[in-house]
Amino acid sequence: MKNKKIRIGIAGLGTVGSGVVNLLDKNKEEIFRRTGFEIEIAAISATDKTKQRDCDITGFKFYSNPLDLIDSEQIDIIVELIGGDKVAKELVLKSIKKNIHVVTANKALIALHGNEISEISEKNQCDVAFEASVAGAVPIIKVIRESLSANKIFWIAGIINGTTNFILTKMLQTKKNFDDVLEEAKKLGYAEADPAFDIGGIDAAHKLAILSSISFGIPLDFNSIYVEGIENIELDDLNYAKELGYVIKHLAIGRRVKNGIELRVHPCLIPNTRLIANVDGVKNAVVVSSDAAGPTLYYGAGAGSLATASSVVSDIIDISRKIISKSNVSVPLQSYQQGSQSKENILNIREIKSRYYLRIRVINEPGVLARITKIFGSKSISIESILQKEDLINDEFVPIVLVTHAVVEKNITDALVDIENLEVVKDKIIKIRIEELN
Amino acid sequence: MKNKKIRIGIAGLGTVGSGVVNLLDKNKEEIFRRTGFEIEIAAISATDKTKQRDCDITGFKFYSNPLDLIDSEQIDIIVELIGGDKVAKELVLKSIKKNIHVVTANKALIALHGNEISEISEKNQCDVAFEASVAGAVPIIKVIRESLSANKIFWIAGIINGTTNFILTKMLQTKKNFDDVLEEAKKLGYAEADPAFDIGGIDAAHKLAILSSISFGIPLDFNSIYVEGIENIELDDLNYAKELGYVIKHLAIGRRVKNGIELRVHPCLIPNTRLIANVDGVKNAVVVSSDAAGPTLYYGAGAGSLATASSVVSDIIDISRKIISKSNVSVPLQSYQQGSQSKENILNIREIKSRYYLRIRVINEPGVLARITKIFGSKSISIESILQKEDLINDEFVPIVLVTHAVVEKNITDALVDIENLEVVKDKIIKIRIEELN
Repeated sequence: MKNKKIRIGIAGLGTVGSGVVNLLDKNKEEIFRRTGFEIEIAAISATDKTKQRDCDITGFKFYSNPLDLIDSEQIDIIVELIGGDKVAKELVLKSIKKNIHVVTANKALIALHGNEISEISEKNQCDVAFEASVAGAVPIIKVIRESLSANKIFWIAGIINGTTNFILTKMLQTKKNFDDVLEEAKKLGYAEADPAFDIGGIDAAHKLAILSSISFGIPLDFNSIYVEGIENIELDDLNYAKELGYVIKHLAIGRRVKNGIELRVHPCLIPNTRLIANVDGVKNAVVVSSDAAGPTLYYGAGAGSLATASSVVSDIIDISRKIISKSNVSVPLQSYQQGSQSKENILNIREIKSRYYLRIRVINEPGVLARITKIFGSKSISIESILQKEDLINDEFVPIVLVTHAVVEKNITDALVDIENLEVVKDKIIKIRIEELN
Repeated sequence: MKNKKIRIGIAGLGTVGSGVVNLLDKNKEEIFRRTGFEIEIAAISATDKTKQRDCDITGFKFYSNPLDLIDSEQIDIIVELIGGDKVAKELVLKSIKKNIHVVTANKALIALHGNEISEISEKNQCDVAFEASVAGAVPIIKVIRESLSANKIFWIAGIINGTTNFILTKMLQTKKNFDDVLEEAKKLGYAEADPAFDIGGIDAAHKLAILSSISFGIPLDFNSIYVEGIENIELDDLNYAKELGYVIKHLAIGRRVKNGIELRVHPCLIPNTRLIANVDGVKNAVVVSSDAAGPTLYYGAGAGSLATASSVVSDIIDISRKIISKSNVSVPLQSYQQGSQSKENILNIREIKSRYYLRIRVINEPGVLARITKIFGSKSISIESILQKEDLINDEFVPIVLVTHAVVEKNITDALVDIENLEVVKDKIIKIRIEELN
């Protein structure tokens, strides 16, 4: 077993790929002390060999096509860090069929094609590991698949997109509005030039698809996830939430309820006493609530070259141990075995039950509140509290900030349509769900 | 592979043992859906069969001596939940020699005899798993041994004793003193009748011995750990710390420094902006800072029947997978392979460098502060800030609350001896280390 070498190929040399090359070099000895084997990069692949990058690739065998790499090289593991779901998917499926194990950081690939990949990989007794696909350095995949394996998981809730969390944190800290902070995030490299994928919640939804499949033993089902971004959150809302004892966070939530499973990504008010309410900036955190362990929380860097590489390399090491032991048993890709997954009812967002924060901009005249509360009454919505802004008493328009008791969302949605039709109501009503997370 | 059964024996049916029996029954189906095998309790053992307990043991084969259990039964895994390091040690060593894998929650056993157990278990290719020995439901052992396997770990800092954290939290929240809150903790079952083991820090030190060995690749070395309890923390200190922007927590700290490794358990002031500063009550949390992943934090229930059983059963499942795959490769018990551990210099507490919070009770007269600061000056200690309590101006005695810049501890210790010798100084000086945790 000692002095055995594991040969890997690395496809994709962007931020994460460079991090993996650097980390394997930097901590070669540390890894050998733990494992007793060496991880050798047999070859690498990227579209452009001459591009400037953050790792030194001199001395590595180079392929411009990753499919050529797996055809030509004798490797144990391919590390797919190309991204996207075109070439990456072809590479992963071909590798599995050639009995080459796969490590990937590709959330879109797993979220959109994981069911197929899972089935084929089990058939071929080949591992596909994806720790780095969710929450960067935070080992949430291993925790759910292995550490909580004796539990029935009730719900998961995560801050799993650093860009949105950075923006919400900065808006509140610096009292700036969304657009200004977004510009700052772009300058700092925390937001892409086209940030729609992060800001709009798609990135978080890919990750929620993965987390919910392995938590609840259900097929990956990206399309059933309700997704709402943070584009409409205003500084006013962050301030009102604070006054009410809450913090607004963009959460990915999966929850078992009586009639199925809720899967949703949207901004939430959460009590400021919750640990996750104090997770700021680009950091990620996931809370998992399960029957035996109770609530547990996992926190750390959600992105970054070496942080993500830490998860990629831990997957390489896990698979290497398996290869060396000639073991043919893996933790199932989706945590639950093929055939043991249950097809649950994924609730439409209109069916979920929640408390709501509502901000309604109205003309400042007597009787307005009465007309609004009458509509709420007609939809069986009770108001828990109203935030009065006395200092605005002489303004033409004033905000009414309301917190409702728990109610089915369709009642709220329908009531808001009626309220928005009142001529005394200006602008679209801001509606943010409240999550107690207990 | 399907429908294979794993046979286990359970030795010890206290809080954790009952939890394991209950959890294996409750989540039998959930575990089968994940693993494809059944975990069968072949036999159980406890000193008194008739004792009332929280699990139903009718139908189980019973032994009053666990050594008889492993001699008479064909089992794959023995679950050692007896506690202590006498019978437990005998049982574990005998099991390994009979090629029966071991799962244990016994921190004292691993902390005090882990080096020996590790060596013998590797020789016999037999696993000894101990996730439940530190931080209850929090999977900190697996995270350090497997998820952070590509990292060089710089430092670890944990709230890993629920009793002390409950007391410190309650004192601040309810403005009660130590003795009153300790009584409350006893009533709630959060503190033992003889709480010295928890309050004095020995329990946390056992856990730190384990965490530091697997984090730094050093032999277990319980006796080199500096241990200080929370007996001397007064409500005043919690209040002053709060005024300074800190929270007092009882931390277990392991840290690589230039000339060796620091291992210490003691109360600390930590900035209230740190996530771990917000970990309250009986909860546990561990921060691990490593070169690639950066700082990551793991949080959850540190004790409790089912919470601890969650970790025990996850270990049983891990080992069962290994048995079924006929794998002969394990993650090394101490994370690093036998022979790869380094013997590092464990620093004496006098050699560590820290900032200090000091509370000195003095006679309220002119010139006292000058005499004190002169002594600090003579030991190269600079003062960062002094908290003046103006409202005490007419009292006979007043506290001087100081924060020092970073300095080697022996300078502080020596200075405090001289200061305590001044006739204007009353009582022992309260000295609490400040940890920035960054």
